[in-house]
Amino acid sequence: MTISPGAALLDLRERRPLVHQITNYVVMNETANATLALGALPVMAHAPQEVEEMARAAGALVLNIGTLSEPWVESMLLAGRAANDAGVPVVLDPVGAGATRYRTETARLLLDGVDVAVVRGNAAEVATLAGREAEIRGVESIGAGGSAADLAREAARTLGCVAAVTGPVDHVSDGKEVVAVANGHELLGAVTGTGCISTALTGCFLGVRPPLEAAVDALVALGVAAEDAAEGAGGPGTFHARLYDGLAALDPDTLDERGKWTSTSS
Amino acid sequence: MTISPGAALLDLRERRPLVHQITNYVVMNETANATLALGALPVMAHAPQEVEEMARAAGALVLNIGTLSEPWVESMLLAGRAANDAGVPVVLDPVGAGATRYRTETARLLLDGVDVAVVRGNAAEVATLAGREAEIRGVESIGAGGSAADLAREAARTLGCVAAVTGPVDHVSDGKEVVAVANGHELLGAVTGTGCISTALTGCFLGVRPPLEAAVDALVALGVAAEDAAEGAGGPGTFHARLYDGLAALDPDTLDERGKWTSTSS
Amino acid sequence: MTISPGAALLDLRERRPLVHQITNYVVMNETANATLALGALPVMAHAPQEVEEMARAAGALVLNIGTLSEPWVESMLLAGRAANDAGVPVVLDPVGAGATRYRTETARLLLDGVDVAVVRGNAAEVATLAGREAEIRGVESIGAGGSAADLAREAARTLGCVAAVTGPVDHVSDGKEVVAVANGHELLGAVTGTGCISTALTGCFLGVRPPLEAAVDALVALGVAAEDAAEGAGGPGTFHARLYDGLAALDPDTLDERGKWTSTSS
Repeated sequence: MTISPGAALLDLRERRPLVHQITNYVVMNETANATLALGALPVMAHAPQEVEEMARAAGALVLNIGTLSEPWVESMLLAGRAANDAGVPVVLDPVGAGATRYRTETARLLLDGVDVAVVRGNAAEVATLAGREAEIRGVESIGAGGSAADLAREAARTLGCVAAVTGPVDHVSDGKEVVAVANGHELLGAVTGTGCISTALTGCFLGVRPPLEAAVDALVALGVAAEDAAEGAGGPGTFHARLYDGLAALDPDTLDERGKWTSTSS
Repeated sequence: MTISPGAALLDLRERRPLVHQITNYVVMNETANATLALGALPVMAHAPQEVEEMARAAGALVLNIGTLSEPWVESMLLAGRAANDAGVPVVLDPVGAGATRYRTETARLLLDGVDVAVVRGNAAEVATLAGREAEIRGVESIGAGGSAADLAREAARTLGCVAAVTGPVDHVSDGKEVVAVANGHELLGAVTGTGCISTALTGCFLGVRPPLEAAVDALVALGVAAEDAAEGAGGPGTFHARLYDGLAALDPDTLDERGKWTSTSS
Repeated sequence: MTISPGAALLDLRERRPLVHQITNYVVMNETANATLALGALPVMAHAPQEVEEMARAAGALVLNIGTLSEPWVESMLLAGRAANDAGVPVVLDPVGAGATRYRTETARLLLDGVDVAVVRGNAAEVATLAGREAEIRGVESIGAGGSAADLAREAARTLGCVAAVTGPVDHVSDGKEVVAVANGHELLGAVTGTGCISTALTGCFLGVRPPLEAAVDALVALGVAAEDAAEGAGGPGTFHARLYDGLAALDPDTLDERGKWTSTSS
């Protein structure tokens, strides 16, 4: 596999995939704006009357359990199955898995009921789903045993999909290859929903690339945009506004040079 | 009719109409802030226990189906009828009409059940409601046959209300007169919810002006604010923050000069 | 009691309390980002299946009825009682009490069913709950009879908790002492949700301080951050982005000097 976030971005901006997002109330505006800034088209729809029709029409489906409730989970299942039937790839963000029993069980329910292409979470969330011990407070990962690279590989094998574990360095694996992405900036951790944005961007790239590549492309794109956004930012608020500037300004011609990813296989 | 967005803005800031908004999760914060920045008072309330009381107390009611679901649609009907009974003008934003059957049917249900003063949408949404063929992806209009001026006039006649069709140039019609508004900036298309903001601002001006004028006033105000916001913006994120600065800084004394509207009758 | 917002902030950033927020759709992103910028950890969760577990794990619980509906109110009651059982302090924001009967009754229901440590509202909201006449339009306080200091003291006595009445000058009382906080900036009134942010920050400080102190600490912190954010802001939009920069940049070493609070007892 040849990874080229620049080439993927060029394709994405030409094809403008529609990215159907059933996500949480906290970040809807943010993930929609990140999707638009990157160059894809966001749509938020959660009613059972329309999620199947919308998911079938989309280039990718994003499921995010950040503010989950029973009716939304049912719509995620409906949309996820419709996406599967139509060959539309699905990315799952198991926000807060491990923090409450309901979140852990719902994440598992979605993984059982839907064929997910990529799971994107922090170390504690992914560790929880992979059956490891993890420490989580609310929706913030505090720690998880072992290396993040091992965690990504193990989770991919256990869950049968690509696992993207984000942190100071991100690790993406399909169970064999592990790609480490070192782009990014610490201010990403000071703004709520940047993890959810990375999931939404993974959805965008799933519209034009296979899962492992799409997850790496998304993390490189977000990381480089964050590096640009941090320059001249006065703190998390102005950084947040500048992050969308950074995404919109990403240059397909230079993105590969600026990307810091390394791949290892086992 | 004499259109004067400047005089309307002066009235609005003096009277500060309360604008009751039953809108979508993605843009609630944004339309509330745009309402405040212009000079009116926003209130979001969707529970069936209170929407009638709130709508009756308001200067205008905004209905927006961007993230519709059954209980919200029922509340929109309740609020819309209460507004009608109390003589409170209603503006409808049929987000994504044409994208799914549920959205198209819900927009029609609201138009049937509520006496709407203004429908504000993009070309594909309005064309769908006027019974024309339209191309829509998710909630983004890709194209609609014919000229936007004709579409606005035709939609106004078919729907029996003022139609405001926004795009690179906006067109507002009451079925006879068509007003084209050429203010604005392309960055408006790079930020989610700016269409919803134009609907909310139409609600603000409906608190102080009749429908055709109110829709034109709103599009001139948003367009001029966007022109100011774009100056010095580094991309969609900083443009978005500066858009509220631009709305708050609108000057009633210069707004008419800066407005670019032309009116034709048939 | 010795008030020291600086010492409280130092403690907060060391202990990073988890602040569980059941709040309104309009401000969720904003209160989460304010919580993070101050130095605490936000989590939004409203499903009945998990609110008790989440509230028990939290350092404080924030209840806010800004976009209330039946299922959310039921979850607030569940979470509030669980918090009470676990000794987790609760702050209530009665958004729009007085504007509709449903809001007034719901605020009273929550005060009856949950042991609330602090009520934070504007003058009209607090006056409504204290049984006074008040003028409110939507969720904006227009006026309330009498002095704000008297209102805070009276409300605290009537409601049996600390009352924080925010306005141009804020007043916090436990029924005996009244602390006036004169920090802040008029641009806070031009951005939606800054009242909700003050409630969320009160929740943050409740994780490390008793109620009267926590409420004062929060209002000093937000007020000083707003003063910094206003410098160089071009209007409400850029002020809003800079407000999070201001919160993140708050310096425990200088916060007490910059705080403008005065205390009187009766």
